[in-house]
Amino acid sequence: MRNKRAGKIAKVKVGINGYGTIGRRVADAVLKQPDMELIGVTKVTPDYRIEEAQEKGINVFSVSSSRDFEAQGYLVKGRLQDMLAECDVVVDCSPKGKGSENMAIYSNYPNLKAILQGGEKHDITGFSFNSDCNYGQAAGRRLARVVSCNTTALCRIISTLNASFRIRKVRATIVRRSADQSESEKSVLNAWVPEAKKGFPSHHALDVKTILPDINITTLAGEAPMTLMHGHMLFIELEKGGRQADAHGVADALQKNPRIMLCSSQKGLTSTAKLKDMFSLNGRNGNLYEVCVWKDGIGVDSDGEIGLHMAIDQQADVVPENIDAIRALCGTADRQASVALTNRALSIGNSPCKPMDGRVLSATT
Amino acid sequence: MRNKRAGKIAKVKVGINGYGTIGRRVADAVLKQPDMELIGVTKVTPDYRIEEAQEKGINVFSVSSSRDFEAQGYLVKGRLQDMLAECDVVVDCSPKGKGSENMAIYSNYPNLKAILQGGEKHDITGFSFNSDCNYGQAAGRRLARVVSCNTTALCRIISTLNASFRIRKVRATIVRRSADQSESEKSVLNAWVPEAKKGFPSHHALDVKTILPDINITTLAGEAPMTLMHGHMLFIELEKGGRQADAHGVADALQKNPRIMLCSSQKGLTSTAKLKDMFSLNGRNGNLYEVCVWKDGIGVDSDGEIGLHMAIDQQADVVPENIDAIRALCGTADRQASVALTNRALSIGNSPCKPMDGRVLSATT
Repeated sequence: MRNKRAGKIAKVKVGINGYGTIGRRVADAVLKQPDMELIGVTKVTPDYRIEEAQEKGINVFSVSSSRDFEAQGYLVKGRLQDMLAECDVVVDCSPKGKGSENMAIYSNYPNLKAILQGGEKHDITGFSFNSDCNYGQAAGRRLARVVSCNTTALCRIISTLNASFRIRKVRATIVRRSADQSESEKSVLNAWVPEAKKGFPSHHALDVKTILPDINITTLAGEAPMTLMHGHMLFIELEKGGRQADAHGVADALQKNPRIMLCSSQKGLTSTAKLKDMFSLNGRNGNLYEVCVWKDGIGVDSDGEIGLHMAIDQQADVVPENIDAIRALCGTADRQASVALTNRALSIGNSPCKPMDGRVLSATT
Repeated sequence: MRNKRAGKIAKVKVGINGYGTIGRRVADAVLKQPDMELIGVTKVTPDYRIEEAQEKGINVFSVSSSRDFEAQGYLVKGRLQDMLAECDVVVDCSPKGKGSENMAIYSNYPNLKAILQGGEKHDITGFSFNSDCNYGQAAGRRLARVVSCNTTALCRIISTLNASFRIRKVRATIVRRSADQSESEKSVLNAWVPEAKKGFPSHHALDVKTILPDINITTLAGEAPMTLMHGHMLFIELEKGGRQADAHGVADALQKNPRIMLCSSQKGLTSTAKLKDMFSLNGRNGNLYEVCVWKDGIGVDSDGEIGLHMAIDQQADVVPENIDAIRALCGTADRQASVALTNRALSIGNSPCKPMDGRVLSATT
């Protein structure tokens, strides 16, 4: 990125610190971007994911000493610091809380931009990012935080609907998956675990306000015994004076955003498991970058209030946001261009789940 | 009940048609009432539950021919019709839809009163029952329908809060258990199944209005992979002019109803599984007749709107309602007396889960 030759912009050099659920998917996505180069990824523990990376030709760096890695028969390219020295941007995909700690390391590289994930507090970067809502505000910044999967989904839906209707208040409930697929030690069994300890509203309402400060939103959440996706149930109250909604109008408004996918129970997509199954063998590796809204579940009650069900792939919906955040921080593309590039590279909008009325969405916004 | 001798009212003779999840629990509860006599229960299929009933000294009647029963080595007391001929009231606990079909049989017994469950439509009985809301309206009727577990819980919470605050609108989401414990062939595995097919609002909103026609309520629901209890997340918007709420005031209002139990994450009750565990060895056979509200999850947002989490034992919360419905239809006790009698017999309000501020509720309302 730093060197311009004959008007051609060099590729942005990206490092990924942490090769877990999100890091692996951001790495795959970076490899698909024509304007990015993946310098490498880091690993803390020497496990099977190193082989996964190396088979893809990705350089692996160790966060601490490489001795443990060698003991397991893994050769690493160097240390985290070696990777950072070569990068324009680091995408921090380390576990919750660790990203904030890593800021001290990143500050040793004056030209390095850093992107944290939604597990970190907003104040650490002072700027929370969502492609649909505030892409332009990233310009000139060194730091951004891509908000969590649930907050990303809420921001995407709310901003898209707010462009067609005037929202008075959003009431959202979140049925969280209790663990990711690989977190076999963490999953809840056969119980509902309300997020009661921290009171009401849940943190999601506050987090949405880091992106959409003017939206009135209140949230409740809990954990269900599942690993695949989160489920959301939303009540969206509209301003009395504005355009009134019907189910068709809501579906139409949502379809304008290629990162929102309308699906249908009538077509057999009755659950999050069916959604994941649909995306398991179509070249998307099971990743649902889109927020999935059940078209047959959209409705308007007697007060004119919208209700809808949606599902969020906690492993995937923030991936295109991270890719856009790289360009937004580096200033290499405006929002429209970046979103189009990301969507094309990740086949977003070309999903097998076509809009329900037969229209085919373009891969660009 | 029909014969009064020396001012003493004879026991109400109760038959239970269907000895499944609800029927077995209503039978146990009837056995504990000082003013009721259990004539018997019916079974459609000859299975292990017959032994359960007979070990308790309960007469078992067969719905169809007794030949299948004899083939399995079970002796029955007679047919359904034999049981009905002896009863003042039949509590129909047969599977969804079957109760409505049974009405033709019940109509052959002019003095027989019948109670259906929430799986049947309101129109079949023309009267839906909830002890807290409309006990008195049962007088003189032959038929009543005890609303479903979720609707019972919503009516209990809404009517209790509406006595202390003026509710403008309730928005409720329901995280349903996908199957009861014994329905091993029905349970959902590792997926969220939104109730999207039937649109918005879900049927629960309409069902609450059969009991509380003046309450503005809208609902969304889905099924989670669990068997133990339902989870609810509620937003309760208050009228602007009325008394405003704080978390303490809401908890205080709820505690006035002994069929609402406040529980606390801080005391280890972090999930529905913990609640069931708490009630497994205390003489209640795992039955939570009370609606359980997490005290630490009660809050009020910046608009003054109440948010709360609650859990509902789908096998148990309608049991005291069925018992009260028997007395309400037969006119053998007024609401206060019936609720006190039922609560005392079932140890409701004497639960080990004491109100969080140390006050001990009496077993009466």
